[in-house]
Amino acid sequence: MDNVSSNSSSPRAGRPRSERTRHAILDAATDLALEGGRVPTIDAVASRAGVSRTTIYKWWPSSAAVLAEGLLDRFHESIEFDDALPVREALTLQVDALVTLLRDTPAGQLVRQLLAAAASDRALGLAMLERWLEPRRATAAHHLERGVQQGGVRADVDTTLVVDALFAPVYHRLVWGHAPLDDNLARQVCDLVWPAVAAPTTAPTAAS
Amino acid sequence: MDNVSSNSSSPRAGRPRSERTRHAILDAATDLALEGGRVPTIDAVASRAGVSRTTIYKWWPSSAAVLAEGLLDRFHESIEFDDALPVREALTLQVDALVTLLRDTPAGQLVRQLLAAAASDRALGLAMLERWLEPRRATAAHHLERGVQQGGVRADVDTTLVVDALFAPVYHRLVWGHAPLDDNLARQVCDLVWPAVAAPTTAPTAAS
Repeated sequence: MDNVSSNSSSPRAGRPRSERTRHAILDAATDLALEGGRVPTIDAVASRAGVSRTTIYKWWPSSAAVLAEGLLDRFHESIEFDDALPVREALTLQVDALVTLLRDTPAGQLVRQLLAAAASDRALGLAMLERWLEPRRATAAHHLERGVQQGGVRADVDTTLVVDALFAPVYHRLVWGHAPLDDNLARQVCDLVWPAVAAPTTAPTAAS
Repeated sequence: MDNVSSNSSSPRAGRPRSERTRHAILDAATDLALEGGRVPTIDAVASRAGVSRTTIYKWWPSSAAVLAEGLLDRFHESIEFDDALPVREALTLQVDALVTLLRDTPAGQLVRQLLAAAASDRALGLAMLERWLEPRRATAAHHLERGVQQGGVRADVDTTLVVDALFAPVYHRLVWGHAPLDDNLARQVCDLVWPAVAAPTTAPTAAS
């Protein structure tokens, strides 16, 4: 549950205090969003955090950008899984954690609203990518690479494509709403992808 | 290239004229959107189509809803494929047509903007589902069912899940922008999904 601060390795004068302020702003934006189910205004975030608008704009271009970062910090534990788990199980649990997060908490509608806002706000889109999607993709890619090293996953696996195949159906159902985020979705998606991902276990009849 | 009108089987007094008006409105919204790269206003659509706002609101709740329907009609040919094609090839071509449409025409950014607007407009979301996504899903499901009948696709295929797996990565890349809509994407996605979809061709060693 340790939050990983990207600034923790660059001590500077005043850092502890500004770090406290940053976290107060992130917490305020996230709490307001989870309570209200929508992206809060800058004024509401400033008021809740006890800072000025200027302080917020020093670090972020919009309240949506604050929220994108705050949501990641808040739900960071949902992308941390033990390397002791078999790769397929670790990936299934990761997809299932996303399903549960998007279905059972306000994070689902917040992510949907942030994605919608990102369609006309390039900086927010980049923040969402950097703070929300890429860390989750990196965790999944880590497990796939672990599988390659351990021999259970094909050495020529297309990591970008497989990570898309694992997570895209979850976001697709969130955004379009054509089918529910079922309890079984994560396992079904992993079962569907796995035959193409697993290293061949039979005798090598057709090498290359 | 025939547009299929869902009303063509219910003749009523005045239908031909109102049909012409409907099509003029759909064409106006679609032309304006493709020229401008964004959802047009109701006033712009009314002006281009030579009708009143009231006439448009008689049939649609918003210009976005008009556009959702107009875009489907305009790009309807991208979901029509010959049943003479092998199932896997028909599905690959369908995904590839979507990749090309979303990448190489303004339809991509329009779909992204309509999806964004749908996050806070339930009627639009339903129109997008009904007019854009479901007809494409139905075509893909048709090919999968054809494959079951012909024996190339597993009889227990989860059609909803497989259709998600085929199309979700395309929309995922459109919405998040984390990876490009490559020329190879459609084939890669189909190759990834196919081992889990194909009916077993080996001797039945473990039935059921």
